[in-house]
Amino acid sequence: MNFTGSHILTIDQFQLADVRRIFETAERMEPFALRKRRTQVLQGALLGNLFFEASTRSRFSFAAAFERMGGAVRDMIGFEHTSFQKGESIHDTSRVMSGYVDVMVVRHPEVGKVHEFASATNIPVINSGDGTGEHPTQALLDLYTVQKETKTPVDKIKGLRVAIVGDLRHGRTVHSLVKVMALLDRLDFSFVAPDALQMPAELADLAQERGHKVAMTESLDEGLEGSDVVYCTRLQEERFATAAEAARYRGSYAINRDVFERRCKPTAFLMHPLPRDSRSGAMEISPDMDGHPALAVFRQADNGIAVRMALFVLVLGVADKVESTAQEVGWYVPKKFGPKDV
Amino acid sequence: MNFTGSHILTIDQFQLADVRRIFETAERMEPFALRKRRTQVLQGALLGNLFFEASTRSRFSFAAAFERMGGAVRDMIGFEHTSFQKGESIHDTSRVMSGYVDVMVVRHPEVGKVHEFASATNIPVINSGDGTGEHPTQALLDLYTVQKETKTPVDKIKGLRVAIVGDLRHGRTVHSLVKVMALLDRLDFSFVAPDALQMPAELADLAQERGHKVAMTESLDEGLEGSDVVYCTRLQEERFATAAEAARYRGSYAINRDVFERRCKPTAFLMHPLPRDSRSGAMEISPDMDGHPALAVFRQADNGIAVRMALFVLVLGVADKVESTAQEVGWYVPKKFGPKDV
Amino acid sequence: MNFTGSHILTIDQFQLADVRRIFETAERMEPFALRKRRTQVLQGALLGNLFFEASTRSRFSFAAAFERMGGAVRDMIGFEHTSFQKGESIHDTSRVMSGYVDVMVVRHPEVGKVHEFASATNIPVINSGDGTGEHPTQALLDLYTVQKETKTPVDKIKGLRVAIVGDLRHGRTVHSLVKVMALLDRLDFSFVAPDALQMPAELADLAQERGHKVAMTESLDEGLEGSDVVYCTRLQEERFATAAEAARYRGSYAINRDVFERRCKPTAFLMHPLPRDSRSGAMEISPDMDGHPALAVFRQADNGIAVRMALFVLVLGVADKVESTAQEVGWYVPKKFGPKDV
Repeated sequence: MNFTGSHILTIDQFQLADVRRIFETAERMEPFALRKRRTQVLQGALLGNLFFEASTRSRFSFAAAFERMGGAVRDMIGFEHTSFQKGESIHDTSRVMSGYVDVMVVRHPEVGKVHEFASATNIPVINSGDGTGEHPTQALLDLYTVQKETKTPVDKIKGLRVAIVGDLRHGRTVHSLVKVMALLDRLDFSFVAPDALQMPAELADLAQERGHKVAMTESLDEGLEGSDVVYCTRLQEERFATAAEAARYRGSYAINRDVFERRCKPTAFLMHPLPRDSRSGAMEISPDMDGHPALAVFRQADNGIAVRMALFVLVLGVADKVESTAQEVGWYVPKKFGPKDV
Repeated sequence: MNFTGSHILTIDQFQLADVRRIFETAERMEPFALRKRRTQVLQGALLGNLFFEASTRSRFSFAAAFERMGGAVRDMIGFEHTSFQKGESIHDTSRVMSGYVDVMVVRHPEVGKVHEFASATNIPVINSGDGTGEHPTQALLDLYTVQKETKTPVDKIKGLRVAIVGDLRHGRTVHSLVKVMALLDRLDFSFVAPDALQMPAELADLAQERGHKVAMTESLDEGLEGSDVVYCTRLQEERFATAAEAARYRGSYAINRDVFERRCKPTAFLMHPLPRDSRSGAMEISPDMDGHPALAVFRQADNGIAVRMALFVLVLGVADKVESTAQEVGWYVPKKFGPKDV
Repeated sequence: MNFTGSHILTIDQFQLADVRRIFETAERMEPFALRKRRTQVLQGALLGNLFFEASTRSRFSFAAAFERMGGAVRDMIGFEHTSFQKGESIHDTSRVMSGYVDVMVVRHPEVGKVHEFASATNIPVINSGDGTGEHPTQALLDLYTVQKETKTPVDKIKGLRVAIVGDLRHGRTVHSLVKVMALLDRLDFSFVAPDALQMPAELADLAQERGHKVAMTESLDEGLEGSDVVYCTRLQEERFATAAEAARYRGSYAINRDVFERRCKPTAFLMHPLPRDSRSGAMEISPDMDGHPALAVFRQADNGIAVRMALFVLVLGVADKVESTAQEVGWYVPKKFGPKDV
């Protein structure tokens, strides 16, 4: 695809070659994301960071990526926006914002609304999540993490065993992830969830049609067996009809050091889109994984900056101008961002 | 007037020569507003964007204008500000902020409070709306739109027939607009509204004293007859005593293509301060006007950036320094911001 | 101490030499804080301004200090942050943010939480208040104000009589202030408060152990007698069990011109951390002190910018690079920020 001026709305719009191009660009952006170098390539440009549903993490990640390149960011958070209550259409909001900024990141609580937003503007729109729909940049940074952790370019990855664990029914993150991983070569998917929370059939079918193996199981031990990659997800409690229904599943797929080391390959690594539920009893990662070299969750979050920088420079057509504005960083940057980083 | 260091509080402070000066400056800022060029003339300067009442659109427009010139923006939105609850006076808030920023944009839900804010500081304050009071920059960008759409410098405009339609009683926007248009030469105003929502008498009187014709009517057909400019406004439902009272008037002055083309001059154009109510049954612009070349509402919103840039460079005394910092824009900018733009 | 890469969490971490170093740096930053010069020394750097409890004033002061040096600021305000509700730990929030920004300012409603935040990251964290705990940068700017008002370097100050008036029990500001002033030479503290709101014994003891005189009194007249410095504080109404209990004390220690001039030394000055309660009947500063040359409260607020700039350049290790990027300011800056400034 031609990235310049394009929207980033769904994983479906990408071929493997497009993903490779994004990742090559992300690799070039890494020194800037890690603050080894700085650039002002977007000095004077504006990002409209429009979150009709609050999400501090995603909002910060997009904004930081843009500001690291010299651009300025306008934030809007849902509870402030009153124009919809006054009857304004998404079309009008989108078109008016287009006169103010150069690119928009949009999160909306309803499926399809980000597409509607994009159809009303000629400036690039990046989908940062539309309800239970998609969150394509999360899937891209997840796959970029797989490339980095396996030290294998995405188009050379082959035959990985990928366990995806947790609430696979409600998580848009894992849905987008399966779609983007389906572009790779002969994977071996293991979907680990209670039957009621299993991966939707159309996604399992899609993976099989593309030549991947797919197994589903309720057993964590069985599902993790021989994994190269383990991807956990948060129980989306807010998507259940009742708190009682959500509570039934809490903690049933917590991953601890014992099961991880016993079942997965020695080179395996553990991913999670965050936030993870760290309260006792939650269906998440056990504290005894803290500081484990296989725990890739913070490297994964860090990768979001480079991948989002790549998307910005691609849709704004400045990927080739980054180098010419690069400078050294003069302020203190720690070698590792966290005390437990390995 | 001498702009440098001045507050922008009310339309009453301007002579026609001042308006002309603002518009000449706005024209020079257009390439920057339209992202054909960029400037860092305000690099290092700070705007305090203080919205004691939320308004995403105005907040973004001022901020984008400031950031496009290299300045940084501090946003404060009403529901965050707790110091008033702790008994802080407007004087103290204003004086403390003056130590932090170089210019302040202030919106407040109560009439007169922005003036009070301005009286406590020596840095320029721009009124972005004080309850049912004024919103002078909206009136300026509206009149600038008339200059651009008619291709006639504001001090050469003469004899235009201007229809103002909708809720003329509660709208501070149309009140400020009548005041600023009263500076022009022999206009022919047509105020179209139900009797209960007509233009306040003092504004109609003001226009007549300045030599303009004024007619009032409840009939949309009659009111639009022979118009050069049609200005619609939103029904300010939140200003009515009850929802039932507001509902009586919904949709009674919707402008559609049929009435617009039948009654207005062929060169007429249609303005609206936005947001417009796009729900069925609203007293606003009919969807069949979408894409019509006469629909100027988005060009009008876009004009806000150039006009606000002009005000910032004038009150901060840097109008003559813009050129020397100008550079080409290197990132992708679409030829038209919206797919329906003509 | 070695500032580069360090957290600023508590006054206890400083020796007098450290305070002197901060103040020397603050003096060098003053031309930038007062907008006589500008610098881009932090161009490309990001501040995470994380307020888990809203505070417009502190949030703006830190952000303005950072933006005046060319850095960009990401703001997060408490009511937006939903990840904690999803069970995210402070550790995870802190570590993820560390991948996005270069330094974090954190305010949290609970004692100790900012320390917990700091323990999870290798980037510098500055405490902007943790419940009833500390607010060290406020204490530093307060003491810097004493240095400036007395025109005496902090390590040469000796024997000052310091009256601290108001709610001394609940105010973390005055607690931190006593701690930092205890580093000075033989002060004469006068704690003026109703018995129920007096300074905690451990702080009075600390001051005495360090060689200072300490007197406590319920009498405002007696307490102010012979003062060089008068420091008032807001009644922290939100920290009382009931509104009725808070109301008992309202207005009992209002300082007016009469008592101030009658009891304090002619060279005395009056400080307050702001916001001050300006409603009639409040326990604060009387309106007849407005415009009095001794009223230092706005100079004190202004000083926050230079002190916070100093802390940023010290923890980020760029104090020596400020000069090389300095430029003249080209826009309008008033000689005095407020009309009543002297």
